[in-house]
Amino acid sequence: MSKFIQEIEVSGHLIDSMILTKIFDKIMDLKGEFQVEEISIGKRKKDQSYARLQVIAKNQKRLDEILDTIYREGAVSKVQKEVVLKRSPKNCVMPDDFYSTTNNRTQIFHKGRWIRVENIMMDKCIVVKSGRASCVPVRDVKKGDPIVVGDKGIKIIPPERPREGVNVFEFMGSSSSSERPTQHIAKKVADDIFETNRKGGKIVIVGGPAIVHTGAADAVAELIKSGHIHGVLAGNALAVHDIEYATLGTSLGMNVHDATLAFRGHRNHMDTVNAVFKAGSISNMVKAKKLRRGIMYECVKNRVPFVLAGSIRDDGPLPDVITDVAQAQREYKKILKDTSMVIMVSTMLHSIATGNMLPADVKVIVVDISQSTVTKLMDRGTWQALGIVSDVGAFLPMVVQQIRKKI
Amino acid sequence: MSKFIQEIEVSGHLIDSMILTKIFDKIMDLKGEFQVEEISIGKRKKDQSYARLQVIAKNQKRLDEILDTIYREGAVSKVQKEVVLKRSPKNCVMPDDFYSTTNNRTQIFHKGRWIRVENIMMDKCIVVKSGRASCVPVRDVKKGDPIVVGDKGIKIIPPERPREGVNVFEFMGSSSSSERPTQHIAKKVADDIFETNRKGGKIVIVGGPAIVHTGAADAVAELIKSGHIHGVLAGNALAVHDIEYATLGTSLGMNVHDATLAFRGHRNHMDTVNAVFKAGSISNMVKAKKLRRGIMYECVKNRVPFVLAGSIRDDGPLPDVITDVAQAQREYKKILKDTSMVIMVSTMLHSIATGNMLPADVKVIVVDISQSTVTKLMDRGTWQALGIVSDVGAFLPMVVQQIRKKI
Amino acid sequence: MSKFIQEIEVSGHLIDSMILTKIFDKIMDLKGEFQVEEISIGKRKKDQSYARLQVIAKNQKRLDEILDTIYREGAVSKVQKEVVLKRSPKNCVMPDDFYSTTNNRTQIFHKGRWIRVENIMMDKCIVVKSGRASCVPVRDVKKGDPIVVGDKGIKIIPPERPREGVNVFEFMGSSSSSERPTQHIAKKVADDIFETNRKGGKIVIVGGPAIVHTGAADAVAELIKSGHIHGVLAGNALAVHDIEYATLGTSLGMNVHDATLAFRGHRNHMDTVNAVFKAGSISNMVKAKKLRRGIMYECVKNRVPFVLAGSIRDDGPLPDVITDVAQAQREYKKILKDTSMVIMVSTMLHSIATGNMLPADVKVIVVDISQSTVTKLMDRGTWQALGIVSDVGAFLPMVVQQIRKKI
Amino acid sequence: MSKFIQEIEVSGHLIDSMILTKIFDKIMDLKGEFQVEEISIGKRKKDQSYARLQVIAKNQKRLDEILDTIYREGAVSKVQKEVVLKRSPKNCVMPDDFYSTTNNRTQIFHKGRWIRVENIMMDKCIVVKSGRASCVPVRDVKKGDPIVVGDKGIKIIPPERPREGVNVFEFMGSSSSSERPTQHIAKKVADDIFETNRKGGKIVIVGGPAIVHTGAADAVAELIKSGHIHGVLAGNALAVHDIEYATLGTSLGMNVHDATLAFRGHRNHMDTVNAVFKAGSISNMVKAKKLRRGIMYECVKNRVPFVLAGSIRDDGPLPDVITDVAQAQREYKKILKDTSMVIMVSTMLHSIATGNMLPADVKVIVVDISQSTVTKLMDRGTWQALGIVSDVGAFLPMVVQQIRKKI
Repeated sequence: MSKFIQEIEVSGHLIDSMILTKIFDKIMDLKGEFQVEEISIGKRKKDQSYARLQVIAKNQKRLDEILDTIYREGAVSKVQKEVVLKRSPKNCVMPDDFYSTTNNRTQIFHKGRWIRVENIMMDKCIVVKSGRASCVPVRDVKKGDPIVVGDKGIKIIPPERPREGVNVFEFMGSSSSSERPTQHIAKKVADDIFETNRKGGKIVIVGGPAIVHTGAADAVAELIKSGHIHGVLAGNALAVHDIEYATLGTSLGMNVHDATLAFRGHRNHMDTVNAVFKAGSISNMVKAKKLRRGIMYECVKNRVPFVLAGSIRDDGPLPDVITDVAQAQREYKKILKDTSMVIMVSTMLHSIATGNMLPADVKVIVVDISQSTVTKLMDRGTWQALGIVSDVGAFLPMVVQQIRKKI
Repeated sequence: MSKFIQEIEVSGHLIDSMILTKIFDKIMDLKGEFQVEEISIGKRKKDQSYARLQVIAKNQKRLDEILDTIYREGAVSKVQKEVVLKRSPKNCVMPDDFYSTTNNRTQIFHKGRWIRVENIMMDKCIVVKSGRASCVPVRDVKKGDPIVVGDKGIKIIPPERPREGVNVFEFMGSSSSSERPTQHIAKKVADDIFETNRKGGKIVIVGGPAIVHTGAADAVAELIKSGHIHGVLAGNALAVHDIEYATLGTSLGMNVHDATLAFRGHRNHMDTVNAVFKAGSISNMVKAKKLRRGIMYECVKNRVPFVLAGSIRDDGPLPDVITDVAQAQREYKKILKDTSMVIMVSTMLHSIATGNMLPADVKVIVVDISQSTVTKLMDRGTWQALGIVSDVGAFLPMVVQQIRKKI
Repeated sequence: MSKFIQEIEVSGHLIDSMILTKIFDKIMDLKGEFQVEEISIGKRKKDQSYARLQVIAKNQKRLDEILDTIYREGAVSKVQKEVVLKRSPKNCVMPDDFYSTTNNRTQIFHKGRWIRVENIMMDKCIVVKSGRASCVPVRDVKKGDPIVVGDKGIKIIPPERPREGVNVFEFMGSSSSSERPTQHIAKKVADDIFETNRKGGKIVIVGGPAIVHTGAADAVAELIKSGHIHGVLAGNALAVHDIEYATLGTSLGMNVHDATLAFRGHRNHMDTVNAVFKAGSISNMVKAKKLRRGIMYECVKNRVPFVLAGSIRDDGPLPDVITDVAQAQREYKKILKDTSMVIMVSTMLHSIATGNMLPADVKVIVVDISQSTVTKLMDRGTWQALGIVSDVGAFLPMVVQQIRKKI
Repeated sequence: MSKFIQEIEVSGHLIDSMILTKIFDKIMDLKGEFQVEEISIGKRKKDQSYARLQVIAKNQKRLDEILDTIYREGAVSKVQKEVVLKRSPKNCVMPDDFYSTTNNRTQIFHKGRWIRVENIMMDKCIVVKSGRASCVPVRDVKKGDPIVVGDKGIKIIPPERPREGVNVFEFMGSSSSSERPTQHIAKKVADDIFETNRKGGKIVIVGGPAIVHTGAADAVAELIKSGHIHGVLAGNALAVHDIEYATLGTSLGMNVHDATLAFRGHRNHMDTVNAVFKAGSISNMVKAKKLRRGIMYECVKNRVPFVLAGSIRDDGPLPDVITDVAQAQREYKKILKDTSMVIMVSTMLHSIATGNMLPADVKVIVVDISQSTVTKLMDRGTWQALGIVSDVGAFLPMVVQQIRKKI
C-alpha cells in the first residue's frame, strides 16, 4: 500500500499541556500513523519543547482530514503556505470551505508574515481586510468580505495550563467536585480576584437570578462597589430580582432577610417591572432616588457597564433589556474585550453564551450548585472553566468576607 | 382586641383538589383566623362541595392581605362587587395597584355579570375593552388601556386534579422520579398522545437540542409526520442540530448512527448554519430539496407551524430565528392558543418560557434527564407539570414505537 | 349492581393535614365510591374536625382492599373489633397475613381497650405480649410470638402538619429547593436546634464524610461540644476522615486548611485506619492523647454516644465499626429512641437507614448538595423530611455561627 | 542553594497514556524541578517510549516526597534497590511506614528479581510470604506478617489507554455525558459484552434496586440466562425487589407491567422478605418452585454466583444476605477474581465498594441516571470507569435487544 505523508512540527509545552498527547490521539482516532522524527523536551519546566513528526495516511483525502484536525491542536506544516481567501457571495453567507475558528490564539500566514487574528472566538470565520485579520460571526459577514478558506497558512497556539502564583486554578486542576473544603476555596477565589484586580486585570461577572434568591445579592453589590468587578453580564431576571430585593426587600415575594412570605408578595415581581417602566430605565430610577442599593444600583453609581440580554422566558422584560439577541451578543462582546477573568454564577444560559465569546486563555470560574452546568460548559468548548460546586448564597458572602480582610 | 371580619365562600372539589386546605393554610400563614360557618361535601365524587367561612384578622390591612391571598385560591366574597378599572398612564406602564394574574381560569364581575378573562397567563394584567377582558403583558399595554386594579370583583376557578380515563397523570400524581418503570410510562404517554390527538386535541412539543444529540430526532420527526404534533416551539440549537443531522448525519460533529467522530466534523455545525443562510430559510432549503428529512423538514412538509426563539447563546442564529425575544414570545403564544397538551423535552429555557404562557389547565409533560428542570418549572408556577426523569434518546423512541402499534 | 358498604369515621385536622383528601384519593384510586354522611370542620384552627363516610365497592374483596388502604390513613371502622393475633411459625418468620406497619403513631384494640404500639417504625410487624404491643423487625421475631394479622382493630393517628413557633418547617413546607436565602435558612435551623435543645429535646446527627471534605468538621465538633447534639450516627468513613483531619490535618490527603495536597497525603487515610487499630479503639486513642480534637473526640469527651455502621465500601473498617449490619441497626435504634429532631447531612445510605427507623412525627432536616437525596428519602416514606439543598461546607459553619450568638 | 538530585527513568506509552505529563505535573506540584536527560518516543503507535530525568529538590525530605509520588505514576529509580519488609506488630496492624498500594499493576524487587503483587487493589498493604507478594487489607493482616514499608524496590505499571477493536471505550474517552446518541451507545455496549464473552472474558454485574423499579429486571435476567453475566454483586434490596417482582409482579407495590398500584401492594415488599425466610433461602425458594423467574432465579438455575452484601438500610435483610460487611467484602473479591469487565448499574454504594477492589486495568462501565455517581467513583480512584448517563429502564432493554440479534 502506498502511503501519503506530510511532515509537521509543533512546539510549546508539549508534555505539560498535553499537546503531543492530543496530536497522537487525533492521528490514531482517524486511523493514521506517525513517526517521531525528532523530539526535544525542555530540560526545565519553563523551557519549550519541540517535536517533528511524519504523519502517514492511506490516501490524500484521509491525510488532509488528519492534518486539518491536528493543525487545530497546534501542529504546523514544516513548509508554510500562504492563507487562502475567498469572497463572501452575499451578506451573512460564508464561502463553502470557510475555516471555522477555535477559541485558541490563532495566526494566519498572509503576505509572507504571520498576523494574529483579533477577537478570537470559537465557531466563527476569519475576515482579512487591510492587513488585519479578525474573527467574525456569520450575521456580521458582508458580501465581498475576504474570508479564510481551507486550512493552509493557519497556526493555532494552544494555551498552556497555568501553574505559577497564588491561583485557585493551581490546586484543583480542571475538574469540578462538591467534595472540597468550601471555606478555603472561597479564600483562594478571593485571593485570585484581589490579585487580578491589583494587577489591573479586568474581571467580569455573569450572573443569574439565584444570586438574589439565595441571598448573595449584597455580596455581589459589594464586589462592584469596592471596584473588583468591571462588567456585569446578565439577563432580565437578575435585574428584576435585584431591584425587587433592593426596593421591596423580597425575591419572588419572599422576604430575603427573614425568609417569610411578604404580604401580597406575588405582586412584587411585576410591580418592580412596572416601576422600572414608569421611571423609563434603571439609571433613571437611580437618578430619581427610587433605587438606592443593590447590584444594578452599584453598576449605575460606579459606572460599571452592564448588559442585560433578553430571553424568551422574560417577564417584561425591562426597558434596559436588549431584546434582540444578535444585538445583545455584540454588546456582550464589547464588555468581554480584554477581560482577564470571568466569574459565572448560577446561569447556564448566559455562561454558555459568554463561554462561546471567550478566547481559551481567559480564566473562567463557574460557581453553581449543579455539577452539570460546568460539564455542559466544558462540553461546549470552554474547557478551561474551573467548576466550584457550591451554594451561591453561602459561597459568595464567604468570598466577599475574605476580600474585605485584604482592603 | 376588636376583630375585622369578612365572610367568604368557595365551591368546587374542595377536598379532592385541596382548595380548602390551601385556603386554611394561607389564612394561618398570615396569622389570621377563620370560622367555618357552613360546609357541605359532595356526597359522591362528582358532586361539588361548598363552604362558607368567616375570615378574621387583627386589623383591616391584614384582613385585606388575607382576602387578597385567598381570593387567588378560589375564595369569593359573599357580596360581589364590580371590578375596578384604571387607565394606563403611558405605554408599557400599568396603574400602580394593577391586579397581577394567576394562570388559573379567571372571571371578572363587570357591569353586573361575570366575564371570562381571555388568554389567561400568570403575572400579567387584565385589560377590559368593549365588554371583553383579556390578559395582557406589560410590553403590550397601551396608554389609556382600562386595567383591572385591586382585587374586587375577581373570581379564580382553581383547576381540579384530573382523575378519569386513560391518562398518564392518573397514576403518578404530580411528582417526578427516576424510579419508575420506564417502558410502561412510555406506553402511558403514547396512549395519552394518541387519545388527545384522536379527540381533536392540539399537541405542541417544546424541545431542546439534546433531542438530536441523544438520537431521538427520528422519533420526533415521525410524531410530526404521523400527525401527532401540531406545533413545535424551540430555539436555534434544535433547528441547527436537526438540519446538521438531516444533511450531514452528525450532531456537533459526531455521527449519530454509529457514534464515531466525523472527519472535519467540527465544521458541520457552522456549515449547516451557512447552508441555511445560503438557501435563505429552512423552507427554502426544503423547496430546493437540500433538506429531505428530520424535524424541521417534517414541519415544513406537513405545514406544522414552528417558532424558533433566539437566545444569547445562539450560533448564527439561523435566518428563521426570531431574534427579538418580545416578538418571539408573541409568536409562541399564537402556537400555544387552545392547546390541550404540551410536551417539553430537554430544554429548561423554552420550557419555563412556555410554562409562563400556559393556563394551569393545560396538560404539561416534561421529559428530562435532570430532575431539577421539573422542580424549577413547578417552582415557577407551572405546578401542573408531570415530570418524567429519563433519557430522552431512549424514551422518545419507545413512545413512538407504542404509537406506531396503534395506527 | 349490588353494593358492598362499610361505614367509617375519621377525626383530627382533616383539612389542614390533608387526611380527608388522602382518604378520598385512595377510595377513588381503587375505583370505590363514597358518601359523606356527616362532616364537621373545626370552627377554629385548633379545633378537631370529624367526618363519617360510607365506603362503597363492587364486591367484598375490593371493599376490603379499600378499607385496608384507608385505615392506614387514619380512617377507623364505626364498629371497632378486637385485633387478631397469630403465632409466628418459626424464628424470623411472620404469619402469612401479618399486619405491616406504617411509621405513623398506631394503636391496637386489644382486650377491649386501645393500646399504643411502642417503637413504631415502617414495614415491621406488631408483637403483642403481656398486654404490651411493640413493633418488631423480621429478624427479631421469635417462634411463637403473637403477631397482629389482618387489619381489624388497628388505628392509625396520622401526624399533623406543624404550624406554631419559631420553626424552620413553618415557612418552607415540605419541599426542597436550592433557590432559597441560604443565610436565613441557616439562622432558622440554628433557632430550631437551639430551641429544641433548650426544651430538653434530643437531637441526633446522621452524617457522611463530606462533612470533613467540605470543611464542616469543626462546626459539627463545636455543636457536640456545646451540648446541642446528643447522638451521632454514621459509618466508617466519617470517623476515618474526621480522625485523619484531626491528627494529620488532611482529608483524603488534601490539607483542609489551605486546600493543598499534603506530601505523601495518599497514605494518610490508611495511616489513620492503622493508627486506630494500633490504639485498639477510638476512645483508647483519646485516652492515650493521640486524638485531641474533632467530631469523634468530642463524642468521647462529652459522652455523646455514637454508632458507626459498617458498609461494603469501608476501608478497614475501624475496630469501632459494627460490621454486622443487623446489629448496627439495633444500635442505631437505641440512639434514636425518644429523639425529637434528626439532622441528616450528606449521606444517603445512613439517612435512608435512619428514616426507616423513625416514627413520622420526628422532625427530620436533610442538608445535601443534591436534591435527589431528599427526593429518595421522601419516596421511601420519610415524607416529613425537610430538604435544604446547600453546600454543607458553607452551611453548617453558618448554623454554628448563629448558635454561638445565642449562648 | 545546594540541590538534592535523583535520576529516574520511565518507559511505556509515555505520551499516549499521559504518563510523562503526570510525572511532570507531580514534580511541579511539589515545587521540585526536573531535567530531561534522554527521551525517545516510539516512532509508531505500538512502540514503547522511554525517558530518563533528573529530579531536583531543595532538600532530601522534599526529594523523597517527590520520588514517592512519581514512583506511583510509573517512574523507577535508575538503580533499583531491594524492597524493605517489616513484620506486623499485631493482628490488624501494619508497620508504621507501610507501603499503601495503588490499583495499578505492581511489582516488587525481592531477592534480586521483580515479582508481581497478586490481587492488587488500592489502599492496602503488601505481604510477602514464601516468595510471593500479595495485596492484603488491614483486617486480614496477621501478627508477624512481613509487610512492605517505604517505597524502595517498588515498580508501578500504569495501565495504557485502550485503543484497538470494537470497543465502547474507544469513542467516548473517560468522560460521561448525557448528551450522546443513546441507541448507539447501547449497541456499542452490547458489542463489548458479546465480544468479551466470546473471548472467554468474565463479566460481573453490580446492581441496585432501580433495575427492578425502572423495569429492567427482565433484561438483566435474560443476560444471565444467555450466559453473558458470570457473577452478580448486589445488596439486599435488589434481591428483595427482584423476588417481589418475580412472585407478585410489583416493585414496592407498583405493578411493573402497567405502572398501577397493586391492592395492598404496600405489604408486598415485606411479604417477599417473609416468604424467603419461610423457604429458608433463595435457592430453597427456587427448588420449591416458589420462585420461577427473575434475576435471582436465573442466578440459581444457571449457577451464576451472587453475593448479597448487607447494609444498615436493609429491610430484613434476607437470609442470603451476608450481614457482616468484612465477610461480604471477602466474598465480593472472590467473585471479582480475574474479571475482564464490570458493569455497574444504579448503585453508588456497591459500585464504589467494587471499584475499591478492582485493579485499574479491568474495564468498568457505569450506567446511572445521575452523573455524580460516575464522578464520585472516579474521584475515589476508579478513574478508568466509563460513565453512561441514561435511564436504566430504557437503556438495558436496548442493550439486550442488540445482543439478542447476535446470538
